[in-house]
Amino acid sequence: MLKDKLENVRKKSPLIHNITNYVTVNDCANILLACGASPIMADDVREVEEITSICGGLSINIGTLNHNTIPAMFLAGKKANELNHPVILDPVGAGASKLRTETACKLLDEIKFTVIRGNISEIRTLANGTGSTKGVDADVADFVTEENLDKTIEFAKEFANRIDTIIAITGAIDIVTDGTIAYVIRNGHAMMSKITGTGCMLTAMTAAYLAANIDNPLEGSVASLCAMGLSGERAFGRLMSSDGNATYRDYIIDEIYHLDGNTLENGANYEIR
Amino acid sequence: MLKDKLENVRKKSPLIHNITNYVTVNDCANILLACGASPIMADDVREVEEITSICGGLSINIGTLNHNTIPAMFLAGKKANELNHPVILDPVGAGASKLRTETACKLLDEIKFTVIRGNISEIRTLANGTGSTKGVDADVADFVTEENLDKTIEFAKEFANRIDTIIAITGAIDIVTDGTIAYVIRNGHAMMSKITGTGCMLTAMTAAYLAANIDNPLEGSVASLCAMGLSGERAFGRLMSSDGNATYRDYIIDEIYHLDGNTLENGANYEIR
Amino acid sequence: MLKDKLENVRKKSPLIHNITNYVTVNDCANILLACGASPIMADDVREVEEITSICGGLSINIGTLNHNTIPAMFLAGKKANELNHPVILDPVGAGASKLRTETACKLLDEIKFTVIRGNISEIRTLANGTGSTKGVDADVADFVTEENLDKTIEFAKEFANRIDTIIAITGAIDIVTDGTIAYVIRNGHAMMSKITGTGCMLTAMTAAYLAANIDNPLEGSVASLCAMGLSGERAFGRLMSSDGNATYRDYIIDEIYHLDGNTLENGANYEIR
Repeated sequence: MLKDKLENVRKKSPLIHNITNYVTVNDCANILLACGASPIMADDVREVEEITSICGGLSINIGTLNHNTIPAMFLAGKKANELNHPVILDPVGAGASKLRTETACKLLDEIKFTVIRGNISEIRTLANGTGSTKGVDADVADFVTEENLDKTIEFAKEFANRIDTIIAITGAIDIVTDGTIAYVIRNGHAMMSKITGTGCMLTAMTAAYLAANIDNPLEGSVASLCAMGLSGERAFGRLMSSDGNATYRDYIIDEIYHLDGNTLENGANYEIR
Repeated sequence: MLKDKLENVRKKSPLIHNITNYVTVNDCANILLACGASPIMADDVREVEEITSICGGLSINIGTLNHNTIPAMFLAGKKANELNHPVILDPVGAGASKLRTETACKLLDEIKFTVIRGNISEIRTLANGTGSTKGVDADVADFVTEENLDKTIEFAKEFANRIDTIIAITGAIDIVTDGTIAYVIRNGHAMMSKITGTGCMLTAMTAAYLAANIDNPLEGSVASLCAMGLSGERAFGRLMSSDGNATYRDYIIDEIYHLDGNTLENGANYEIR
Repeated sequence: MLKDKLENVRKKSPLIHNITNYVTVNDCANILLACGASPIMADDVREVEEITSICGGLSINIGTLNHNTIPAMFLAGKKANELNHPVILDPVGAGASKLRTETACKLLDEIKFTVIRGNISEIRTLANGTGSTKGVDADVADFVTEENLDKTIEFAKEFANRIDTIIAITGAIDIVTDGTIAYVIRNGHAMMSKITGTGCMLTAMTAAYLAANIDNPLEGSVASLCAMGLSGERAFGRLMSSDGNATYRDYIIDEIYHLDGNTLENGANYEIR
């Protein structure tokens, strides 16, 4: 199931339009190249509609949103909707400021997203229209654990149904649901949280998986999340005792670069609920 | 003395608000994670006060200042002052343009900084209200050497006293002073100047040390500078003959990731003047 | 011929002003340091003329152009022209949007560039005043091959003559021409296209080669292109089986860091047409 999703990315090499933050943008570009896609970053209102038109998918990330890029997000998102391009939202830090929460909620109102990928605190903020996030990381009180897993799946399904969008909650345990089926993914490694941008990279890569698997966004998303988590595990296995988070970042991108369909299929650790 | 400063960062894991440049921002985020803190980058005037309120410290870096980020620096700085959060200034390139010099001086006028960290040319520019800096590097004529060390300490103490702020001058020899005591630090490696952002990373990390050691900003700063210098030495020791500045950058962050209190205590090379 | 061009960069250590994109800016800064130059990034209209005045060369890259940075490009470019500083243009994505095409063409009209470096699609767009580019990569239909090489050289010479500017077209085969002589360079490795920013880094480094070899911009450009290509080959040789594009990026910068004049002279693979 996941194998062909990965192979489609390499075969079709979709061009992905990214309106994203300046913190992790380089890693987002490199992971898109690593997985077989191509990145373009453009956020001036005068060009975003045109740029998104030549792309296969759009990734909107509000990590360092500002008064220039916010209008660009709306313009690009609407154009992508018009063209039936997949659009993914990464609501970085939703709940940490009114500007982030309101922008994310307004984006949800005006743009039809294919997928929203965030940590549990960000997704809860969007679901409630308000929230409290510890910066750009999930609040400990919100963490998805085996104990609250059933409830969190229920929450995610309800939200996915309500807004008719695939919800991808990532953390120690990932949940991906279209409102009917929920995939629970247990790939990844705790050290991934010690790198800036694993979430942003995952969002960018998921846009490529969506663009290359246009008829199956749910499985496309699952494949992307498993690919990221599995690469995190494999990259961790390469670390020597002196290697830290900077080397780990490079190794994760390197693993995505080499990942093939069979390895993904065999290494993916998910169940359906 | 330094050991507990480092351990406090890992224990308290402060969230640090960064208004910084887009050149080295990713490295700043990763070094904050490496040392045990958490980064958030936000520079829109509509959110910076709120963001800084949920953080433990604020780092202002004027490396790629512009008309959007400058007002954000003032707003965030004043809010951090109100909340008694530590605030650090990195006056990147002060002296290289009127905009940088004037902005840095105006920030000094309106915001109470806990620490100012810069190279000797930048600090001289701030002290004089004017200056000539060779881009973002210190002017050779200004270099701190064993010969001019006494005079430079005197200058730093005078300036620290005058503005009641800890002054951290970094280069081959570092000087940190609150106006009364001066620490002279001889950690580090010359090759660190061949990486972009060692200064920016140090400033960001120092914000975390200040936030986690709120009662002792002087020793907190010294610990952060020694940690950076020592990691530069240790990372240099890991380099193989083909490794250059890009690998060196990653290794420095990796060393910060693994650095523990005892290693810092034993490896720190400083004297008090 | 190339050896002294490289050595001049290390000897003179030119300061290079970069108005560039936020995707690859960190790599541009690190490659400038690696080759022996110094970077400064500044794009606020209030400081760019002053910044460019203290530099030895200017690199303009439209990769994430916006309404703030575009006016800064014009101001800095005109000031650099006044001061007879070398100026290089990287027309990233020209052809992908009207904004990019028009901005690049207007820059050509108002600023005298020493060199324009782009992929074949971008350069064709500038030559025609219009074009279609697949995002930021060259269109496959445009690729320079042994079959269309003669024609492409002719095109490049004609365009170089018409605008009296050195044209550097890079890809699997590079062409550098001042309109009279064309250098055809066959250094590099296909995997370089799997890293974001090899083009941007090359443009930044070429600005340093121009600034350090002010009397011979053609050979300076050739030296820079050969240095990049050769470093791509040598870095590829260092890769282990698990290494991917992220590690490759670091290794390329590392190779530039270690590259000396003799290695460049011996490894450069070019012919004159």
